Order: sequence, then C-alpha cells, then structure tokens
Amino acid sequence: MMKSSQIRDGWFTELSEKNFPGQGLSLKVEEVLYHSKSEFQDVLVFKSSTYGNVLVLDGIIQATERDEFAYQEMIAHIPLYAHKKPRNVLVIGGGDGGVLREVVKHSCVESATLVEIDEMVIKLAKKYLPRMASSFDHPKIQVKLCDGFQFLRDTALRGQRYDVIITDSSDPEGPAEAFFQKEYFELLHNALNDDGIVIAQASENVWLNIKYIQDLMCTVRSVFPRSQYCYTTVPTYTSGQLGLVVCSKSSSTDLIYPIRKPTDEEQSKLLYYNTRIHSASFVLPTWAKLTIDGEQK
Amino acid sequence: MMKSSQIRDGWFTELSEKNFPGQGLSLKVEEVLYHSKSEFQDVLVFKSSTYGNVLVLDGIIQATERDEFAYQEMIAHIPLYAHKKPRNVLVIGGGDGGVLREVVKHSCVESATLVEIDEMVIKLAKKYLPRMASSFDHPKIQVKLCDGFQFLRDTALRGQRYDVIITDSSDPEGPAEAFFQKEYFELLHNALNDDGIVIAQASENVWLNIKYIQDLMCTVRSVFPRSQYCYTTVPTYTSGQLGLVVCSKSSSTDLIYPIRKPTDEEQSKLLYYNTRIHSASFVLPTWAKLTIDGEQK
Repeated sequence: MMKSSQIRDGWFTELSEKNFPGQGLSLKVEEVLYHSKSEFQDVLVFKSSTYGNVLVLDGIIQATERDEFAYQEMIAHIPLYAHKKPRNVLVIGGGDGGVLREVVKHSCVESATLVEIDEMVIKLAKKYLPRMASSFDHPKIQVKLCDGFQFLRDTALRGQRYDVIITDSSDPEGPAEAFFQKEYFELLHNALNDDGIVIAQASENVWLNIKYIQDLMCTVRSVFPRSQYCYTTVPTYTSGQLGLVVCSKSSSTDLIYPIRKPTDEEQSKLLYYNTRIHSASFVLPTWAKLTIDGEQK
Repeated sequence: MMKSSQIRDGWFTELSEKNFPGQGLSLKVEEVLYHSKSEFQDVLVFKSSTYGNVLVLDGIIQATERDEFAYQEMIAHIPLYAHKKPRNVLVIGGGDGGVLREVVKHSCVESATLVEIDEMVIKLAKKYLPRMASSFDHPKIQVKLCDGFQFLRDTALRGQRYDVIITDSSDPEGPAEAFFQKEYFELLHNALNDDGIVIAQASENVWLNIKYIQDLMCTVRSVFPRSQYCYTTVPTYTSGQLGLVVCSKSSSTDLIYPIRKPTDEEQSKLLYYNTRIHSASFVLPTWAKLTIDGEQK
C-alpha cells in the first residue's frame, strides 16, 4: 500500500485518503534534499527528475520550480490588477516567497508584509527554491514570523488596513485549518480598506470537492458583498488545477474585468498572467457554475 | 520501478517515459474488468474506487465515467456550435461512443458516421461504459469498422464531404500515429465542405510538450486558413488538461465566438459546455500563447 508522503522505488507519491481518495500524483525523485519535521509540519524538499526542486508540506506538493509561476502569478495579480491602486499588501503564508516576488512587480505597491508561521519554510526556500525566494531582501518587503490569525487580530487592534490581502496558506489541515472558516474571513474584511480585495487559495477544485467550494463560497458571501471563484492550472496540484476565492469589500469592484492592465514592461515579466486569462479564469464548466452560484439551468 | 500500465498493490499508474517522463497519475483499482490485447492495442478496463469505470489503451487513460463529459462535450460542441448548420458529421476514432452521444444532441445533425479501427473498443464501451456508448443505436448514426486514414482516402475518391469532422484518436503511438501528420490534415481538408470545421485532440497540453503543439499548429496552419489551439480540463488526463486543435476551411469562420448558442433545452443536457467556456478555452497563459502563436511580447 502507498502511504502519504511516501517515497518508494525513487518516486514520491502524493496521496490523501481524506481530500482526494483513490488518486495520486507521482513525481520521480532524483535526490532528497531535506526531510524533517519543523515545529509545525512535515517538510520535504526533493529534486525531481523533470519538475526541478519540489517543496512538500505534510505530504502535499506546495510548489515545483517548473510550474510554480502559474499559481504565484494568478493569486497575486488577479487582486492586484483588479485594484485601482494597491499600496499596502499583506501576504499570509507563502513563506516560499513566490507571491512576494510577484507583488513587488507592481511599482504602485509601497509595502508588502509577509506573515509566515514557519521560519523553516523561508529558510528552505532561500536555499532550494532561490527563484521563488528572490525578493526577500527587497526594500518594500517586511517579514513577520507569527500566526496569521493572531496577526490579523492585532491588526484590528492597531486599526491597520491593507489594499490587498493574499492568503497563500497550505491546505486546511495542520497549521492552516482555521484559514477556511468564517471568523478568518471576518478578520480579513476588517483588515481591508474600503476598496480592498482579498484572495485565498480554496485548497480544492471543482473536480475534487465541489461541495466544499460551494460551502466556502457561502461562507465568504456572508461576509463580503462580492465574492467569486476562479482557478489556475498547475500540473502538479491535484487534478491539475487549484481554486481561488476572491472577495471585495466594496460592491462596486469588478473582480472579473481588471481595472488596471499590465504595462508592456510589466507584461514582459509575466509568464502566465495576462488580462484575458484573468477574466477567463472565472469562467466555469456548466455543472460547476450551477453548483457554486446556484443559477437556474 | 513502476512500469507503464502496471497495476501494483491495487493501484493503476499511468507512465510514459517518452511522453511525460518523471510523472505519473495513479488511480485506485477496485476490480480489473477486462485486460487483453486486441488486434491493434493493449486494452484494459478497470473499476476504480473513485472515478467509476476506466478505459485504458496502450497504458494511457482514455476515459473515466466521472470526468469523461469534459472531453466529449468540448471536442464535440466547439466545432458544432462554431458551424452555422452542421448536417453531416464524421467522427474518426472515438469507439467508446462518447463523442457520438454529444453529436446527436444537435437536432440539425442529419447523419453522424463513426470510423473506428478497433471493434473491441466499441464492444467494451457498450458493456462497461454504457453511458458513453448510449447512442450507438441512434437512427442518425452509422459505424464503419476501418482505418480512419483509409476511410478519408476513399471519401476523397467518392467526393463525399462533411460539415464537421472530429478526430477522437488515441495518442500518436500505436494505431493513431499517422493522425498527427500533414498528410492526415490534408485528407481532412479535402473531406470538408467549404464552410467545414475539423477538431482533433492534440495528445499533449502546453505544460507537457509545448514544442510538439507548436509544431502541430505549424502543420495545420500550412493546410487550413484558420487554426486555433484550445483545451479542456480533465483531471485524469496527464497534467489535468488536454489540448484540442480546431481548424476551418473558410477563413471567415469564427472559431472562438460560436455562431450558434445552445437552446435552453440543449443547454439543460450539457454538464460542461456553455458559450462562455467555449471562448475561454482558447485563452492561454502568456508563455503558451507566445510560443504557439509567435506573438511579440
């Protein structure tokens, strides 16, 4: 029997009896670069034969060097280009640095704060995923090593507000469990400026557990006046795609058609994102749209 | 070492050192329903624990009951709704019957001809994939058991023409190898009416082998005045998506914005396809669009 996180005969296989029973993606391992338990989670880094270095947390693939840009660019640029002028950005989770790298591509961003609970992830990303971790020394970036939930509570006390918040958590097991509940989205709502936008990885996609996404959308719609589901394609995420939930504090914000477009200079640095794929990522198969949005056939 | 087509410890793993080295999708097997070599290929049918029955040809997953509609609907309805009035439709390959099931949903279609080289696939689909094979007895459908290439040559001699041709072949190894070469697309071009449209599965996607897609698009663009790459998401295809190549004999056909829309009655029978996802399926990540279409950054 294959077990979660197992490397056998030179292959790593990602399995989860709870979240995606009966299916598993395998990547061929050239070399295990690091494997240990941090204070918070099981951390594995290996060199794969065809996807570059791979970061695995609690048995789930978080990023590979070959396809990471698909996730990092979409979770960062969808809210940032949907916002008229994002100045202050908060990233919760994302210790690999990939989202930060994308955020500071926006010249209007004045400050980007990363809140990561597990310093080990930052250290390992700097060592083994250097292209993702390339922006930690950028002058606009600050790093806070603490729990995202607690940081948001303190933010409320300080009266601090952000234009865009990006929740780049791991899946809702282990340290990230609370990041998918109503109280969390209420804290996010409170931490946004009036025209602020938040995006969170949904940890699922329409093929795997659409009921979960339906429930998550109900939760966020009870907090935000406007919320939409979209997705990005990533071959090493389960089923090849990952859902994203994007919400705005103002009901007049258009999430689907971005208010800003990349300049030629900005676009030349983007491998995945463009204005057309921003909008296309919100278009769902019929059954998924009906389930999530409850529209009549 | 895992090998192609291997079932081990109750899991089937799809591997191809040539086409997708270093990665593999595994599905948990409840029961092997059929495994044998037909005259043309290795044929496996198994009951999976979470994707229903699964058809595997030469070690590659062709269809699972849970997600097959994503492929069948998109490869059928993209050309059919892009055509003003498709009357005569040819399906090459597709012995599982899934594409035929979609084709006869269009009331304007008067005749749908299936050309399948391997009768075993049809027999097994009727037995183990009954929802896919549900339309073989439909009065508009004819089945020809022969080689698609030879059928097209004979079609040219007979001067027969089709409005839409759908190439639902397996991948370019084994019996389907010739279905990805220029001579094949020239035969397709000759077999189309002047406003005809052809669609073929590209056997690859942008994540896996974009150079192959680039070459394939060069080939079809040397034959057809208008050709576009699009894709559908299918969790049990490698990397979770499959490319489709759609070409029109007339330069004035709009492939991206369909000329017809499903009636309410038609839409109620479609799980995946809708007019918006038709257009969105042509929108590519920046690096893929630049590579395939050669546009300036």
